[in-house]
Amino acid sequence: MAKSKYEYVKEFEEDDKLLRNVYILVRIDGKGFHKFSAAHEFAKPNDVRALNLMNHAARSVMHELDDILIAFGESDEYSFLFRKSTDLYQRREAKIVSTVVSLFTSAYVYYWSDYFQDSRRPLYPPVFDGRAVLYPSEVEVKDYFAWRQADTHINNLFNTSFWALGTDSKDKNEMLFTEFNTNYSKLPAIFRKGSVLLREQIPKEMHKDAIIPTLPETLPGSMSASASLTSSTSSTLEQSVPEPALESSGQVGSESTTPTSDRVAGTNNSALETKDDKKRSIDDEDEVDEDGDEPGSTAKEESGAVKRMKKGIVIDHIDIIGEKFWTGRGAYILAPEKKKKLRSK
Amino acid sequence: MAKSKYEYVKEFEEDDKLLRNVYILVRIDGKGFHKFSAAHEFAKPNDVRALNLMNHAARSVMHELDDILIAFGESDEYSFLFRKSTDLYQRREAKIVSTVVSLFTSAYVYYWSDYFQDSRRPLYPPVFDGRAVLYPSEVEVKDYFAWRQADTHINNLFNTSFWALGTDSKDKNEMLFTEFNTNYSKLPAIFRKGSVLLREQIPKEMHKDAIIPTLPETLPGSMSASASLTSSTSSTLEQSVPEPALESSGQVGSESTTPTSDRVAGTNNSALETKDDKKRSIDDEDEVDEDGDEPGSTAKEESGAVKRMKKGIVIDHIDIIGEKFWTGRGAYILAPEKKKKLRSK
Amino acid sequence: MAKSKYEYVKEFEEDDKLLRNVYILVRIDGKGFHKFSAAHEFAKPNDVRALNLMNHAARSVMHELDDILIAFGESDEYSFLFRKSTDLYQRREAKIVSTVVSLFTSAYVYYWSDYFQDSRRPLYPPVFDGRAVLYPSEVEVKDYFAWRQADTHINNLFNTSFWALGTDSKDKNEMLFTEFNTNYSKLPAIFRKGSVLLREQIPKEMHKDAIIPTLPETLPGSMSASASLTSSTSSTLEQSVPEPALESSGQVGSESTTPTSDRVAGTNNSALETKDDKKRSIDDEDEVDEDGDEPGSTAKEESGAVKRMKKGIVIDHIDIIGEKFWTGRGAYILAPEKKKKLRSK
Amino acid sequence: MAKSKYEYVKEFEEDDKLLRNVYILVRIDGKGFHKFSAAHEFAKPNDVRALNLMNHAARSVMHELDDILIAFGESDEYSFLFRKSTDLYQRREAKIVSTVVSLFTSAYVYYWSDYFQDSRRPLYPPVFDGRAVLYPSEVEVKDYFAWRQADTHINNLFNTSFWALGTDSKDKNEMLFTEFNTNYSKLPAIFRKGSVLLREQIPKEMHKDAIIPTLPETLPGSMSASASLTSSTSSTLEQSVPEPALESSGQVGSESTTPTSDRVAGTNNSALETKDDKKRSIDDEDEVDEDGDEPGSTAKEESGAVKRMKKGIVIDHIDIIGEKFWTGRGAYILAPEKKKKLRSK
Repeated sequence: MAKSKYEYVKEFEEDDKLLRNVYILVRIDGKGFHKFSAAHEFAKPNDVRALNLMNHAARSVMHELDDILIAFGESDEYSFLFRKSTDLYQRREAKIVSTVVSLFTSAYVYYWSDYFQDSRRPLYPPVFDGRAVLYPSEVEVKDYFAWRQADTHINNLFNTSFWALGTDSKDKNEMLFTEFNTNYSKLPAIFRKGSVLLREQIPKEMHKDAIIPTLPETLPGSMSASASLTSSTSSTLEQSVPEPALESSGQVGSESTTPTSDRVAGTNNSALETKDDKKRSIDDEDEVDEDGDEPGSTAKEESGAVKRMKKGIVIDHIDIIGEKFWTGRGAYILAPEKKKKLRSK
Repeated sequence: MAKSKYEYVKEFEEDDKLLRNVYILVRIDGKGFHKFSAAHEFAKPNDVRALNLMNHAARSVMHELDDILIAFGESDEYSFLFRKSTDLYQRREAKIVSTVVSLFTSAYVYYWSDYFQDSRRPLYPPVFDGRAVLYPSEVEVKDYFAWRQADTHINNLFNTSFWALGTDSKDKNEMLFTEFNTNYSKLPAIFRKGSVLLREQIPKEMHKDAIIPTLPETLPGSMSASASLTSSTSSTLEQSVPEPALESSGQVGSESTTPTSDRVAGTNNSALETKDDKKRSIDDEDEVDEDGDEPGSTAKEESGAVKRMKKGIVIDHIDIIGEKFWTGRGAYILAPEKKKKLRSK
Repeated sequence: MAKSKYEYVKEFEEDDKLLRNVYILVRIDGKGFHKFSAAHEFAKPNDVRALNLMNHAARSVMHELDDILIAFGESDEYSFLFRKSTDLYQRREAKIVSTVVSLFTSAYVYYWSDYFQDSRRPLYPPVFDGRAVLYPSEVEVKDYFAWRQADTHINNLFNTSFWALGTDSKDKNEMLFTEFNTNYSKLPAIFRKGSVLLREQIPKEMHKDAIIPTLPETLPGSMSASASLTSSTSSTLEQSVPEPALESSGQVGSESTTPTSDRVAGTNNSALETKDDKKRSIDDEDEVDEDGDEPGSTAKEESGAVKRMKKGIVIDHIDIIGEKFWTGRGAYILAPEKKKKLRSK
Repeated sequence: MAKSKYEYVKEFEEDDKLLRNVYILVRIDGKGFHKFSAAHEFAKPNDVRALNLMNHAARSVMHELDDILIAFGESDEYSFLFRKSTDLYQRREAKIVSTVVSLFTSAYVYYWSDYFQDSRRPLYPPVFDGRAVLYPSEVEVKDYFAWRQADTHINNLFNTSFWALGTDSKDKNEMLFTEFNTNYSKLPAIFRKGSVLLREQIPKEMHKDAIIPTLPETLPGSMSASASLTSSTSSTLEQSVPEPALESSGQVGSESTTPTSDRVAGTNNSALETKDDKKRSIDDEDEVDEDGDEPGSTAKEESGAVKRMKKGIVIDHIDIIGEKFWTGRGAYILAPEKKKKLRSK
């Protein structure tokens, strides 16, 4: 077979390696999700099942791709930050973007029935697109996430008031406006702040499988979900009301000291945390203890009760606008990398 | 909210518009499918269920994206050719590639249980990556598909002999080698030739839904699948043995005049067509009849029995190496586009 | 010396190879030439010395880079079309663009005093910038040159009327407007049409050096310029009034049969040809005769008087808007290249 | 004129804006300079006239483009570092590269006769090519220049010994090798270290014209060259022996305490400084005094005799490998830019 005769067409493929030693930010967006959310009767203005499914899919991406430092999600979009020194797929842009998008999409469809439990699969396959953006410095990275979280706030504020006005009688509107500021802060943080996925220390007894398809105990739909609900239930990914058993170890960098005091006791979202800054462990990654300079190691000091820790992915709904996060709990994310990484091929 | 303060980060997004007026070829590949196929016990060397699922996912992509002219699949890869003049997403590379990959992945997971009927979903979410390549002229486009189909042939030849040798006793090997050439040609065409998706005329009475999630009648898993099996059963996407009811209308440009003569009657692939050139209608797209210069319109002349036709997506397993396909049945694919398309914005 | 320690920085260089098998168009533009032309008191609206110097610099570029098919210049810009199959510098964009710009700039300064004979060099170094554009098909290439020549026409029309109105008394303006249409066509073609550089057959006895620095006989400033002026004086590059001694050999493919009938005998531009289509040989390149399918070979048939020809670069000021040029004299430019060129590395 | 009909071809131009907020490094290289230097009988292994012409051309580039922080040259190449925040030509790559190359080439031809005084112009137009490389961090920028200077050292060491061995008798070779190490250090620094162009404070009485064509007093070929030789003669750009009048102000970061002790008194290079670290003012740029945090301000302290200073371009032949330069004299080059520059459009 004259294979070589045709193989020249391969030379038309262009090199799309991304510049080295800059942050790679991949953002994925739902395509036609206005229609998709209507078709599936997502709750308005926010549907916690849909958000939790987004978070689950994002976590699957982080599981597979170790060089993702942090992820942030809101509505039907999710952003993933890769470390400067990543050599994933030799930094080929199409490969990186398409893999993230495919992983996310695959997990979204795969875990659908864990969140929309009355249906085996969506009415039709959902689609996401993606793009990569390069950010050379820490300033832009912080401002990028601030941009997205500010967007979360603005969109949610608008949507919440829009739906409130729309469904309430005209007479109530005045009252609504008056009370809006106070009421708004009582909304679940996942709505107001979006979701942040971080690599931090989690209790070692929280088992997980190394591969994606087996869900951690704290996620609905996993085979051990019911068991885990009794021991570790604070995850936002759950839809039943959790006991905040892990709270003591999760409050690194938290503004909150009264995590249970301001819950929204709604019918649909009774399980939602309404306070911003309570960190929840939703996953664990490595069986070995990490040394002191690892991400999230500061958690150790504050979690005396929990003897042994390991690195995992945790979710929270906190402020990432402003320096507080980046110099505190998220300090490891933008910490300088070893110089050798720059020089080595 | 000081949104504008952060929005400058958007300016770091780079323009990735692809050159105008050249063919865009998007190829997707399964990631880690060696492991994936092992985990799911795909039949070796070829698993018809897996191939049919690939074809189904590819068809979903073609359904959504009208500017795809032809698609070719083999093993865990699929290639999609966009028309030169496409302005899909203003030809932004990341958007096009990520959308194709996401669509394909989504459909692959979505339709999984229609082909692997003993499991609700795979053991873990499968992943594909993708890339775009530009081809300026018809020569390269033809050679690209020749390259992929030659690859199909070589891989299948190698794998088939490898597995045959491996599973048979040493004594039988000699015989195998002797008989190989004659036996190889009896293998199903889907294995030897891969799969080609084309936009052609199909009988109008073949209903379909305009949107992806509803399967055409000839596909397993659709609600009308059992009904359609009696009336239109020649699709390779099926797994039960079809009656070649549509053959009379499908043999445009076919080399075959004896489509039933060389079937493989194996236990695992009894439903597979083994002859290359029998066109099978698997889908339909437009309710209105197309005029004479439309793709596939040549089918009209030869399908006297079928009164009314409409454009749809058909699958076949034919030679696309060589000029015969491109000057015959596939002539519309590389036909010059209207000049105005070049000049218009 | 620890060279390897630092050499990793080379890996930050990005691959900028241009897509294969498409036309590469490099356009250079003078930077700040409004100021430059004022500083050097260029004649308004057109300075034939400056245009001739541009043409000379462009010819130097074509001399060095064999894959340039045609060049077109007007005002302070010049466009160079590379053949589709060129592998110059492995099609690296920065290398191609920077080389063309450097060659052009170098020649412009180098030959300055041949055209501005009262000064050894300009008042300060002139600067040009450049860019590459890809054009996949012949349609766009033709339209590109039509675009530039239409621009020449519009600019010249505007500038000519502007300067005519400005320098003449008010009373004459009315007359000017009345007579403008008839007068405009009498302007030198170099002003109205710009300059086209082509590779065609020229008389073999026109000697030239293979390298740039030695000027052909017909160019002022060359050591043999005075000698050549007697034998070959029809070049537009000259500034003295030529005797059209070479006209018989120069009318290859020319539309003109009365080359001397419509000259403008002005004080400032007495040397300028005013007829569009008279081709003038300004250079020669290869000592060996070319075979019949070479560019410009049609010249052979028409030049019975000139026994031996060779390929060279000629200049003309003709219409390249419209099909006439591209199907006639310029037909070789867009003729299909050998298929093997596409396939070979 | 149907201009709009053709203007669509402009849309084929692709956006080539370089990533924001990273260093842009443009390196130019002579093309075919092996032949060029042979044709012009450049002295081997180093020709100080050719190097000085290179330096002059580089200075012209820095004059025109304010965002160049530092330039380094050796042999027939020159590197220019643009500040991270530069918005020159909206960071369009082709525009930046082609402008630098054109400027350099233009100046090289323009000033040729000032350095090769027996010829009006070279035998043929010299050509340079160029490319842009992005460097995100200070580490890579330092290592880039270290890479080039290490290359200078290695090439010069090789070439010097090659030419020494080649021109001396075999008997002398042993002696040469023995003495080589001590002799090598006596070579002019311009050969061993290359040339560095910096923006620093220079005495205000050193006049200059703001535009390129007028040479500063210290350069040969300028109209005031002879006058300036008496007042300011230490420039390496000169070819006559200077009085080191400016030494007191130039020794910032110098390793040398005996700047005049180790001169090479050769016939060809009697004017060359052999000590590395004597800074020489070759130009001045701004008439206004700069405040203390400006580049080169440290020079102030040491130049008590010189009352008033202004910013200009100075040349030196010093070590830029290692931290000493970058934390001392060159500290301003990589100093952080104002944050507002990042955020502003």
